[in-house]
Amino acid sequence: MDTENSAPSSFSRVRRMPKRGVYRRETIHAILDAAPFCHIGHVIGGRPVVIPTLHWREGDAVYWHGNAASRMLEANEAGGEVCLTASLFDGWVLARSGFHHSVNYRSVMCFGTPRAVTDPAEKEAALAGFIDGRFPGRWARLRPPTRQELKATLVLWMPIEEASAKLRAGPPIDEPEDLAWPVWAGVLPVGLVAGAAEPAPDLKPGLNEELPVTR
Amino acid sequence: MDTENSAPSSFSRVRRMPKRGVYRRETIHAILDAAPFCHIGHVIGGRPVVIPTLHWREGDAVYWHGNAASRMLEANEAGGEVCLTASLFDGWVLARSGFHHSVNYRSVMCFGTPRAVTDPAEKEAALAGFIDGRFPGRWARLRPPTRQELKATLVLWMPIEEASAKLRAGPPIDEPEDLAWPVWAGVLPVGLVAGAAEPAPDLKPGLNEELPVTR
Repeated sequence: MDTENSAPSSFSRVRRMPKRGVYRRETIHAILDAAPFCHIGHVIGGRPVVIPTLHWREGDAVYWHGNAASRMLEANEAGGEVCLTASLFDGWVLARSGFHHSVNYRSVMCFGTPRAVTDPAEKEAALAGFIDGRFPGRWARLRPPTRQELKATLVLWMPIEEASAKLRAGPPIDEPEDLAWPVWAGVLPVGLVAGAAEPAPDLKPGLNEELPVTR
Repeated sequence: MDTENSAPSSFSRVRRMPKRGVYRRETIHAILDAAPFCHIGHVIGGRPVVIPTLHWREGDAVYWHGNAASRMLEANEAGGEVCLTASLFDGWVLARSGFHHSVNYRSVMCFGTPRAVTDPAEKEAALAGFIDGRFPGRWARLRPPTRQELKATLVLWMPIEEASAKLRAGPPIDEPEDLAWPVWAGVLPVGLVAGAAEPAPDLKPGLNEELPVTR
């Protein structure tokens, strides 16, 4: 058995389209790293609440942060489990029948119970890893965090244990008898693209050369 | 009181950064229409499950679809409530301090209990609205759906009642005393951009001129 590609539990096993489900660690890491943000689901008062959230990865753990007074904290104080889903939309897949229309995408779901980073030094190191992960070398150039700012920042993490990836790539797959149907079929790729940097209106002269490099 | 901009219930009221919360119907509709997909949170066996899902809007209702044998159906058969969150990432906001780093984004959260469209004719009309909403006029050109395909397709909807939008735009907002800090600050815009269409390898000659127009 290829344990690297087996579902860690029946809960995180991909049920629909199992051929699209992959559990390899490198695939899961690559999608988490490529997605600029994720959606985290909490159960609050018995109801699902899905919040867009910035995340980052350190080794086999996924981190996120928020305001120490947020709803997330309320939920997590109750020891609540979360589902962290990070998805990248790669394009529309247009088939000859409505039924075989699809999308190309990459998505990861991670289940777990988040833990808070409480030690101020560890918290600062985690936040530095977040900033430097996106913008290498930036943390050391920033105005250092105050004790108050660190206190107001909640850093959460959970191990990437119960996780799966699901993805689709490639052209539409039509019924053989539909291939001659007189309609355009193919993929309309879509992707996240960076635009031109917009310096802050109050940026001091001479700093425009210092544009950070994005990972 | 501006009822168009008041939270419909305390549950959907934006708790963090309330100044970023907007409840105007046009704003909520525009974000739902701009996002190519959303994330839907279900509670399954007491645990949150967040699934990336294609959605579309018809008037004051949001629709989505899936395989009739999916986990979503299991959850919804139990009358389960969902949280549908659609988010667009617009860019990184780089400040002089880590604390004031942020992102520009537009996001909508809709709460409700989905209902299924069971009538086959209504289901077909809903799916036509989905395809034509993204690719005007395409539905009539497709191979029509079979009874079997319609049966295998679950169409769900809920009214956009308990919903809120949250967004951020514009440059970083730093502490006044940090403005002279010697580091680049500003916005690195990011957006979903369409690439060149990729015709299906088995596309019959002569159909390449028929490339669909995206809304």
